[in-house]
Amino acid sequence: MKIAIAQINLTVGDIKFNQRNILDQVKKAQALRVDLLVFPELTVCGYLPEDLLYHQQFIDDCLTSVKFIAEQCQEICVVIGFPRNHPNEPEKLHNSAAFIQNGKIKMMYDKHQLPNYLVFDEHRYFTKGSHDGILEVEIKGESHKFGVNICEDIWNDAKIVVEQAKDNVDWLLNISASPYAVDKIGSRIRMLQKRCKDNGANLVYCNNVGGQDELVFDGTSVIINSDGKLLAQCETFQSQLLVFDTTDNEIQISERLDHQTELYEALLMSTRDYFHKNGFLKAIVCLSGGIDSALTAAIAVDALGAENVLGLLLPSKFSSKHSIEDALELAENLKIKTHSIEIESLHSVFEKTLTPFMEDYFKNLTDENIQARIRGTLAMAFANNDNAILLSTGNKSESAVGYSTLYGDMAGGFAIIKDLFKLEVYELCEYRNTISVVIPESTISKPPSAELRLDQKDSDSLPDYETLDDILKAYIHDFKDAEQIASQGHDINLVKRILKQVDRNEYKRQQAALGPRLTKMAFGKDRRMPITNGYPNNYG
Amino acid sequence: MKIAIAQINLTVGDIKFNQRNILDQVKKAQALRVDLLVFPELTVCGYLPEDLLYHQQFIDDCLTSVKFIAEQCQEICVVIGFPRNHPNEPEKLHNSAAFIQNGKIKMMYDKHQLPNYLVFDEHRYFTKGSHDGILEVEIKGESHKFGVNICEDIWNDAKIVVEQAKDNVDWLLNISASPYAVDKIGSRIRMLQKRCKDNGANLVYCNNVGGQDELVFDGTSVIINSDGKLLAQCETFQSQLLVFDTTDNEIQISERLDHQTELYEALLMSTRDYFHKNGFLKAIVCLSGGIDSALTAAIAVDALGAENVLGLLLPSKFSSKHSIEDALELAENLKIKTHSIEIESLHSVFEKTLTPFMEDYFKNLTDENIQARIRGTLAMAFANNDNAILLSTGNKSESAVGYSTLYGDMAGGFAIIKDLFKLEVYELCEYRNTISVVIPESTISKPPSAELRLDQKDSDSLPDYETLDDILKAYIHDFKDAEQIASQGHDINLVKRILKQVDRNEYKRQQAALGPRLTKMAFGKDRRMPITNGYPNNYG
Repeated sequence: MKIAIAQINLTVGDIKFNQRNILDQVKKAQALRVDLLVFPELTVCGYLPEDLLYHQQFIDDCLTSVKFIAEQCQEICVVIGFPRNHPNEPEKLHNSAAFIQNGKIKMMYDKHQLPNYLVFDEHRYFTKGSHDGILEVEIKGESHKFGVNICEDIWNDAKIVVEQAKDNVDWLLNISASPYAVDKIGSRIRMLQKRCKDNGANLVYCNNVGGQDELVFDGTSVIINSDGKLLAQCETFQSQLLVFDTTDNEIQISERLDHQTELYEALLMSTRDYFHKNGFLKAIVCLSGGIDSALTAAIAVDALGAENVLGLLLPSKFSSKHSIEDALELAENLKIKTHSIEIESLHSVFEKTLTPFMEDYFKNLTDENIQARIRGTLAMAFANNDNAILLSTGNKSESAVGYSTLYGDMAGGFAIIKDLFKLEVYELCEYRNTISVVIPESTISKPPSAELRLDQKDSDSLPDYETLDDILKAYIHDFKDAEQIASQGHDINLVKRILKQVDRNEYKRQQAALGPRLTKMAFGKDRRMPITNGYPNNYG
Repeated sequence: MKIAIAQINLTVGDIKFNQRNILDQVKKAQALRVDLLVFPELTVCGYLPEDLLYHQQFIDDCLTSVKFIAEQCQEICVVIGFPRNHPNEPEKLHNSAAFIQNGKIKMMYDKHQLPNYLVFDEHRYFTKGSHDGILEVEIKGESHKFGVNICEDIWNDAKIVVEQAKDNVDWLLNISASPYAVDKIGSRIRMLQKRCKDNGANLVYCNNVGGQDELVFDGTSVIINSDGKLLAQCETFQSQLLVFDTTDNEIQISERLDHQTELYEALLMSTRDYFHKNGFLKAIVCLSGGIDSALTAAIAVDALGAENVLGLLLPSKFSSKHSIEDALELAENLKIKTHSIEIESLHSVFEKTLTPFMEDYFKNLTDENIQARIRGTLAMAFANNDNAILLSTGNKSESAVGYSTLYGDMAGGFAIIKDLFKLEVYELCEYRNTISVVIPESTISKPPSAELRLDQKDSDSLPDYETLDDILKAYIHDFKDAEQIASQGHDINLVKRILKQVDRNEYKRQQAALGPRLTKMAFGKDRRMPITNGYPNNYG
């Protein structure tokens, strides 16, 4: 039997585009004499359409598409995902899989385990299914028994999968949309291998690939035998039609990416997909000469092409000579066009306009914010005028403590490095430079500064980033409290100050641009904190 | 028996503040010889702490508080809400109620029905309980049987409540945090009356009151007898300790507010609580002379006091004379201080700065957005300098179609009228003027305009608001598709254009300030749409 995995990049909601993509794969598979073709979860609508699922027309359109696709599936078995109304209780919705053979839907299976944690809200949309997912079909004169299941069904206690395996299915067929996070690919494959071995079952596991708003799907679909042996593994962060022949069992395993490459490729795919799926080609990025904008620009260029990235230099009287030089060197290395605008004339008009009303103008960060907002306004003008998306350049450490200006440097439609802590930004710059040197050495080596007042350094108001990132990870990723974090070797008063800062800046994060999720606790759907929150008082 | 409802205003996360508030009520009730005192859902932590619930220290602190409170509850029975770990599986969390008597917790009940739709995400945090909630206690030498349940437990099929009633409890005790929405108060009370009558049970229903980020809790707690008769009803949008004596059965029913009063009071409470719970006294509002900023300013003044509201007039060369006059008249009527800054000098520097780079500067809305962003930057400077929150003035119709500038008029920390369609803004202005005339007649009667270019009117790019609001309600509130909406009497091409505009502007709404939720489908937690969304293509 020839099995194929269609690890494809879908666009949420674009049923017609997805349908063409699906039918292309079917045709290719038919031409290769594939017997069984497996697609990812919610194939026809992409994962996850969120509240589009509340529109009955949308659900109807998905079903129409599945039926149309089914008709084209002659001489091939196909497993495809879609949302469907419960047949007897149409107000209920299922996350379903159709098993298609000879142009007909032979079985519908509805997902049993609905994830509702981190970025997942499936209880909001779906009702759990009850069908056992088992069917026997004849392929080339031989009978095969399959156990169809969906994503979360194979995780945790995997109850339905264990039952299917007990019923001696020849193959478990899992259709997934399992988003990427650091360290997840390896642990996912190990989990799947263990599941196969523990239950003595063969598995075809097809994962989604591509970016959808903050989510990044890595693909890395696999075929594993009942000994837990990896027989095939698709590329990470690439679309692929992988064909596996069970008669010769020729092992096909794509190379695993190393840690930094994986991160970098995740950011590239996410950026490319966010732009292109939303109909944008061009990006604007403000180049400060610092590390964050340098990495953002490098990724934008690698994702979108140098011809589609415009660098803006918007220096003030506080910008150092080396910052401007570093920004220009970066732009030259990246071969991107730049425009330079000194903001001092605008800054001085704002200052002249506002100081009569404010004796405290230079206190309370008012003047610093003005500079950032002049830059935001200029950059957005280029974005508006050029049908481009402005890239926001903030990192996770900054965003955590609110070391950024709303409507200023936070302005923008996409924030590529928002889920990287500051030290990880440095590491990824070093990595990027191993491919070709684009980020100037002095950008990496100089002490970081917002340059919003004379001789300002990040270290004036923040601890060193080793300390800061360690405290932030313990609080945000591990939910530790102040005492626990202090016991890791930090000053308790510093820890309390940082924690309070994180909580008090929630209002900024809730107005921030979205960006690629790289961890299991990104500032996005993963972390849902109230703005009005009296708890930080207790840290004080 | 004397029963009291403590309809109090809690602050999410501020366990110490809530504890003081709770103990104050206990003392007052003790002084009034109350036998049974009932608090709202999740009393000690407020509703809903969202991901604070993932912090074990937070859960521990809640339990410590409940134990401390219990010790003070002598000679009174108290029902109080809090989150608690499952006793045997500490990784699970319950939304619980403690029944306290003589300083001891006599019973813990865990909520059965966990809402997970609209703004609710309780499946994300809680595991459903299994305790029957029934207990018998002796009060003044007589035995009383109670059925404790929590909020959603009494809605829908109300399974646990029906069981408690079957077990002949003397009183159902429901502790709630049921957020306000238009038309909800009446239907909630009718539902509760029906529940009592159908099951022949008496009910004490204690609801939360106050604002928490976008949520507004109206209170309106009730006592209903087994015939479905309303015996007592607390105030709407006010804290209250209501005492009801079952021996004399003296009926105490606060007057229901009419529709406009109810809306207005919801906005006042929400605004006041957002500011004060976040430690802010002062608001900034940009006065354009238009209806949206007029209503926003009026509500801000009524909520925060005239001395705490600063009006900014930021006219451009496109601002009409009547706009400035209307804005000044409004400010005078509201007795608020104003500052006026002509933006033309800044505007011309931006224009001079940018036009060399952009031959299309005056196309693509670039110049219009610049003006809005100059205003946003100026207004934020006043907010930063004055430790104030800038109020964003956009309404739901504008926000739906993206008729607004990100970082411009959308800048701000709180958007009071964001859940009012444009026509509702007019209605609420008329209402406000019935209390005292503050909003100038010409602000209400003139055709709306953004005044970002010469002689601009909203009607240049939008249909009349009767049409627009009708289409938007059908799409956003009722999930209708284009054909269905057209069949209400609208041009199909207009409908498709509007629907596409709604979907394409999701990116703006996801960076918008939060504001009071008045409907069951506000632009906030209620409506979760992807930004990357290929479905609108199908409308075209």
